Amino acid sequence: MRADARDNRARIMTAADDVFGRSPSASTDDVARLAGVGIATVFRHFPTKTELLEAVLTLRLERLRDRALELAGSDDPGKAFFEFFTQVVSESASKLAIGEALTAAGAAAGEEARAAGRGMREAFNGLLTAAQRAGAVRSDAEMAEVYALMIGASRGATAAKLEPPVRDRMLALIYDGLAPRS
Amino acid sequence: MRADARDNRARIMTAADDVFGRSPSASTDDVARLAGVGIATVFRHFPTKTELLEAVLTLRLERLRDRALELAGSDDPGKAFFEFFTQVVSESASKLAIGEALTAAGAAAGEEARAAGRGMREAFNGLLTAAQRAGAVRSDAEMAEVYALMIGASRGATAAKLEPPVRDRMLALIYDGLAPRS
Repeated sequence: MRADARDNRARIMTAADDVFGRSPSASTDDVARLAGVGIATVFRHFPTKTELLEAVLTLRLERLRDRALELAGSDDPGKAFFEFFTQVVSESASKLAIGEALTAAGAAAGEEARAAGRGMREAFNGLLTAAQRAGAVRSDAEMAEVYALMIGASRGATAAKLEPPVRDRMLALIYDGLAPRS
Repeated sequence: MRADARDNRARIMTAADDVFGRSPSASTDDVARLAGVGIATVFRHFPTKTELLEAVLTLRLERLRDRALELAGSDDPGKAFFEFFTQVVSESASKLAIGEALTAAGAAAGEEARAAGRGMREAFNGLLTAAQRAGAVRSDAEMAEVYALMIGASRGATAAKLEPPVRDRMLALIYDGLAPRS
């Protein structure tokens, strides 16, 4: 891909992330307008709205995975785990909207997005294991329920359109439940 | 309404609860078949699919409110609170599907369902306050975040299609977070 085509693709994805994050029913026209490119350019890169949504969802999941891998190098594994958990829940409002837009377009997440999801999950598992080893998270909590808790907190925050202070108090309750048993 | 019309209405709603609970994209035909009535009878009671979905959602929320009010008379307020929380999360898969079907039909919950939702929320608040007074739930947790936690746990369990043992372990983590601080 030539450099200007690559630039266009990146601008379209950034615009789509923004536009669909705010409104899952937005149109590809809105994306083209925000990206400052013609609609034909959007369709050249992404022949269908589903392909565009899928690319945006994949990008978001890959960014979260990268963030988790970055935090995995931290010398305070407990802080790293809770920071990541908080970031996922805080960012989830628009991430979930992309998922909804895909569903509304009649599509499930495709192989690329699912692979990105698995990568994120694995990186999260690494953060959890390190935090447990460091004694910052109770050792009897398994990945399955801790992950479900993070997804649930994300969806709860989004569904109830929680104000940030309420969201933070909800997270504080969850984190107390994850604390090592004395 | 005559007795046989009332019976038909009740049968249609029970069938709709079941059919749409399993598949939000089910048709009114499927509902008529399961209820054992003609499609014309369904349309006489519920002129649109949206009205039928709304009636089912309202009925579910009213039942949950009634259950909360019933539990409010318990002499073990802690047990009553956690029993209700667990019931809502366990039942949520099909309840959420009704909400999704409404969204897919292009409708938001109407006034009747919203009023039923408020009634359920108030009854839940009563259970929480009693459990806090009895020392079974920490007194610094406010209704807003505890309610968000219940909605989140419901959505997390549904989205991740959790197996019951994982769902129960997730709830155990949440309940430890809600326990009084020692």
